[in-house]
Amino acid sequence: MQIGIVGLGLIGGSLGFDLIQSGHHIYGLSRRQKTCNHAIRRGAVSQASTDPKILNRAELVFLCTPIGSLAQSLALIIPHLMTHTVVTDVGSVKAPVVETLQSLWPNFVGGHPMAGTAETGILAAQNTLFKDRPYVLTPNAATNLRAIELVKDVVIQLKAQLYFASPSDHDRAVAWISHLPILVSAGLMSSCIQESDQAVLSLAKSLASTGFRDTSRVGSGNPELGRMVAEHNQVALLKTLDQFETSLKHIRALIEHHEWNALEKLLQENQTARPMFVD
Amino acid sequence: MQIGIVGLGLIGGSLGFDLIQSGHHIYGLSRRQKTCNHAIRRGAVSQASTDPKILNRAELVFLCTPIGSLAQSLALIIPHLMTHTVVTDVGSVKAPVVETLQSLWPNFVGGHPMAGTAETGILAAQNTLFKDRPYVLTPNAATNLRAIELVKDVVIQLKAQLYFASPSDHDRAVAWISHLPILVSAGLMSSCIQESDQAVLSLAKSLASTGFRDTSRVGSGNPELGRMVAEHNQVALLKTLDQFETSLKHIRALIEHHEWNALEKLLQENQTARPMFVD
Repeated sequence: MQIGIVGLGLIGGSLGFDLIQSGHHIYGLSRRQKTCNHAIRRGAVSQASTDPKILNRAELVFLCTPIGSLAQSLALIIPHLMTHTVVTDVGSVKAPVVETLQSLWPNFVGGHPMAGTAETGILAAQNTLFKDRPYVLTPNAATNLRAIELVKDVVIQLKAQLYFASPSDHDRAVAWISHLPILVSAGLMSSCIQESDQAVLSLAKSLASTGFRDTSRVGSGNPELGRMVAEHNQVALLKTLDQFETSLKHIRALIEHHEWNALEKLLQENQTARPMFVD
Repeated sequence: MQIGIVGLGLIGGSLGFDLIQSGHHIYGLSRRQKTCNHAIRRGAVSQASTDPKILNRAELVFLCTPIGSLAQSLALIIPHLMTHTVVTDVGSVKAPVVETLQSLWPNFVGGHPMAGTAETGILAAQNTLFKDRPYVLTPNAATNLRAIELVKDVVIQLKAQLYFASPSDHDRAVAWISHLPILVSAGLMSSCIQESDQAVLSLAKSLASTGFRDTSRVGSGNPELGRMVAEHNQVALLKTLDQFETSLKHIRALIEHHEWNALEKLLQENQTARPMFVD
């Protein structure tokens, strides 16, 4: 198949590697000629250009630009697409993205490959990045069935774990398991460094170990990522934050009222539940 | 030196291994003869008994029973101690422990070796458990200086990182880096499993990955441990929880008011601060 990739970063470049491997012809589009050159030299694309005309034969296009630039990227390429070309994206939030992009291009299917590395950019792109990782497609009632089938077939070739969900169910699920943990973890670190007693703060720094390391990690990571998920998944995120505050208030009440058995029971429920989420 | 160890579990047994290695004579006291037999057979003690009389020659005694049993353990052995015997404990909360035990035995120094494994009991005891790990001693104004020196010298032989702090500073520091993370992490898991939409909850379970794994870990671990820290470090813990709630409220306000630059700045401060706590 003739496949276009817009945005040749970690995700775009890694998609290119796997799709070339599956026998597709890959047209890469980047704003920077240097990135095009890297992508061609590394073998992530069959050909690449800074001119959107390069996509005029693509039957399927992956939009792999940052979530805040997706609409702009799509508007840029629309004049060069065939009317039956299917467009998908890789943004990590889906409801607002699907609403906007679908209105611009009817043959659109939202997607979210849940894979990544600490590094970004074309030089970090790698083979089999999506293998055995979740890849959520988020069609809605208005999505063209042929478009869904086309994207699904390509995702299967990436050997990803394919899931289907409505855009809003996707956003609520990732709020729970990815975005709320960032806020909670950020609140932990942010509150800790407010400690005004320097002897206590200094001792805390010396004594911090694996528990603090794990719990503070995602809230002290890439600030742009944290900002991005809050900005784009605001509605679902605030809803999970409401529930978190309710749960924490309940835990506080158990402690204030010395209800140790009830607290232990709650912690037992957590211990039982966790293996249903992670190993 | 003649050293007594009361409670032959993971900590007591591991102390025994290292102190025998350093040339001390170790008297073990356990409620169960079977535990005494294991400790003798494994070489964690020089001799062991279920009779507190065994401690009548000990110059230093480590109380290694659960934090809720420390006072009872001390009361049990007091009739058999020499008047100059120094007593220390290994409880993970210090202010209430020091207050109680010091009133029972003037030659008392509070201590907290911050080492452990997922396993417990004499069969999990190991050599060099305390090596390069923090060991906090918590004397107060009333603590006998000779007693502090004696315990300090033995802790140094364990090759632990020795810290001194007041009992309340210790409790506030461990509330920040150990106990508050448990509550925050528990609140995350506990709120997540309240999600009433089964499609969302099921998708969340499928998509959960490293971020959720790390952030949910300590709040979904040993329920007795969580109960214990809340029960014994209640005052310091609730104080850190107040600050956490304030910080989270601030983060919520930034999101509600779309203050993305301010949110990114807060996350940058976290990113800068974290290496001062953990690698």
